[in-house]
Amino acid sequence: MRGIVYKADGDMQVETVPDPTILDPDDAIVRVTKAGICGSDLHIYNHGAAFGFDAGCRVGHEFIGIVEEVGDNVTHLSPGDPVLSPFWVSCGACHFCRKDLPTSCVKGGAYGFQPFWRAGGEVQGGQSEFVRVPMAEGTLDRIPESVAGEEHRSKVLPLTDVLPTAYHAVRCAGVEAGENVVVVGDGAVGLLAAHAAQLFEPASVVLLGHHHDRMRIGADLGATHTVDTSVDDPAELIGNLTEGLGPERVILAISSPETMAFAMDAVQPGGAISWVGMEVFLGAPEIAWDTAFRKNVTISGGMAPVRRYLPEMWTLLEAGKVDPSPVLTHDLPMEVGADGYGIMASREEGSVKVAVTPG
Amino acid sequence: MRGIVYKADGDMQVETVPDPTILDPDDAIVRVTKAGICGSDLHIYNHGAAFGFDAGCRVGHEFIGIVEEVGDNVTHLSPGDPVLSPFWVSCGACHFCRKDLPTSCVKGGAYGFQPFWRAGGEVQGGQSEFVRVPMAEGTLDRIPESVAGEEHRSKVLPLTDVLPTAYHAVRCAGVEAGENVVVVGDGAVGLLAAHAAQLFEPASVVLLGHHHDRMRIGADLGATHTVDTSVDDPAELIGNLTEGLGPERVILAISSPETMAFAMDAVQPGGAISWVGMEVFLGAPEIAWDTAFRKNVTISGGMAPVRRYLPEMWTLLEAGKVDPSPVLTHDLPMEVGADGYGIMASREEGSVKVAVTPG
Repeated sequence: MRGIVYKADGDMQVETVPDPTILDPDDAIVRVTKAGICGSDLHIYNHGAAFGFDAGCRVGHEFIGIVEEVGDNVTHLSPGDPVLSPFWVSCGACHFCRKDLPTSCVKGGAYGFQPFWRAGGEVQGGQSEFVRVPMAEGTLDRIPESVAGEEHRSKVLPLTDVLPTAYHAVRCAGVEAGENVVVVGDGAVGLLAAHAAQLFEPASVVLLGHHHDRMRIGADLGATHTVDTSVDDPAELIGNLTEGLGPERVILAISSPETMAFAMDAVQPGGAISWVGMEVFLGAPEIAWDTAFRKNVTISGGMAPVRRYLPEMWTLLEAGKVDPSPVLTHDLPMEVGADGYGIMASREEGSVKVAVTPG
Repeated sequence: MRGIVYKADGDMQVETVPDPTILDPDDAIVRVTKAGICGSDLHIYNHGAAFGFDAGCRVGHEFIGIVEEVGDNVTHLSPGDPVLSPFWVSCGACHFCRKDLPTSCVKGGAYGFQPFWRAGGEVQGGQSEFVRVPMAEGTLDRIPESVAGEEHRSKVLPLTDVLPTAYHAVRCAGVEAGENVVVVGDGAVGLLAAHAAQLFEPASVVLLGHHHDRMRIGADLGATHTVDTSVDDPAELIGNLTEGLGPERVILAISSPETMAFAMDAVQPGGAISWVGMEVFLGAPEIAWDTAFRKNVTISGGMAPVRRYLPEMWTLLEAGKVDPSPVLTHDLPMEVGADGYGIMASREEGSVKVAVTPG
């Protein structure tokens, strides 16, 4: 089969790779119908060597598909079932899975992310025609019938990662009705954080970014205001919206030293900063503890436990209350799927997120 | 009148200082019946110059007393009323006071803490015979009749700061029934955090410290286990109590780089670290962001909004569900009150916290 592999920093390629097979009776093989390229895949593309990736690693952790084959222990899924996989495999039975924190599953691990591979040997990438899914019953979720059709795939694919990640950021921030929210970052997670925030009826959602085309999408998705911070200082707008008190919630879709410093300075006393970006691995934000002490700021976030949120996500999607498809600006056939990395890394005008569709 | 003043690092003295007077119609003058020396006063004692204190500053931010005189605008308090003052003065009317975050009162400030003096000119120290209380109606709380007697003063005094601070730490950590709690630090706040944690019916409360005498008090107050970390590694005990998963809640009564590193390593995925110690001003803890990302750890804390918690505290105190008096190991007459700093700073055997009682 064909799949995208990491060759070197800045070099992803579509190659012929071995077909996956059932290695364990809990496995399933999924035929991928659509896969996503994630902002964290870009971290691999840009800094894979630093993260410990070897040349030849198959990448991708966002995919939906059709069950092709199941191991002997898999009884709740059958060939032909339309399924979605969170980016993290999980057993569904351990302490943390039972606590709805599948990202801390004691057997868990990420697809296409070599340093995190733990479960059942290497968990290969989802940007392939087929994927082996370990612990299939704990990991996969059946796509509800009403959104299982081909025409819904661009709406469903973001539920593998970016929409629940954005939703996690909103929940970690604790957004409540009538509050003011600032979202930092105009990538897919930032745009969808603005989208998810509006579910909680905030007074305002200010999206900060650098790309006009993306921020237009953010405005369509729910941001009440957008600021290009490469041109404008958002302080006056935020001050006006919050009577000078600052936003109750600051969501860092980009979680860098600079965004954390901004957030700690901006956030209203008693408020919260949430963060979900992997940028923390590349540069550790420092906390202005004196400010945090004085203002009683809560800092919350991390890797989104996607499966926790899927029941809510399906309900919202079926009800038309969320539609994350606008962040998928490109959809490439598998053969040219690796080009998606260049499109996303260069922040090409009009691009946010690229889907890859096997032929 | 007599009061304790900061002379230089390591040098506090009782001196004759000017009697306070009503400067503003919202003021009250309180005759102090008992004052406390706080761990944060020790930071002044040890590092006052670095914090910006000048020689001669009157210190102390924990006191209870009797209203002596009120300004023309003060109608809800009268001379003779027994009152408690939180360590932070607050107007009671601004956005943050209405949100129950009086420590962010737009006019607020701390007693006896020169760098924070804001409200109505200098707010002098509470370790004095009399204190001027700005914004008296927003700041002072009347002591309920059943605990207003002289015999209750050692039980009531810790409600000015250390008990609500400990309670804030427990609330920020989000302790729930059946969970495992680790409290780091065996000062008054640490001991009272163990005390406050038991209100939430945790499975265990492990108190980590260095002083056997203090930890005996902690055990009496509610710690189910104590570990002298200068001798023993708590890992095995904590592992046994939590099936190797780590405590759901870690409370940093001492909030240093070392304790934060310990907490991030120890805390169970999905858990929380709370912090309330001023040590962050002396050495900024670094966050192990990779661990925080993987484990989804919430970090919450800051300066305790004492007034928020007083209604609960009075109820608990009157019901006998809390009694913080065991942390007051010493009670000195005002004339020798400054000796309390030496007793506390040297961590003299049998000492935790010193009260000062005007004659």
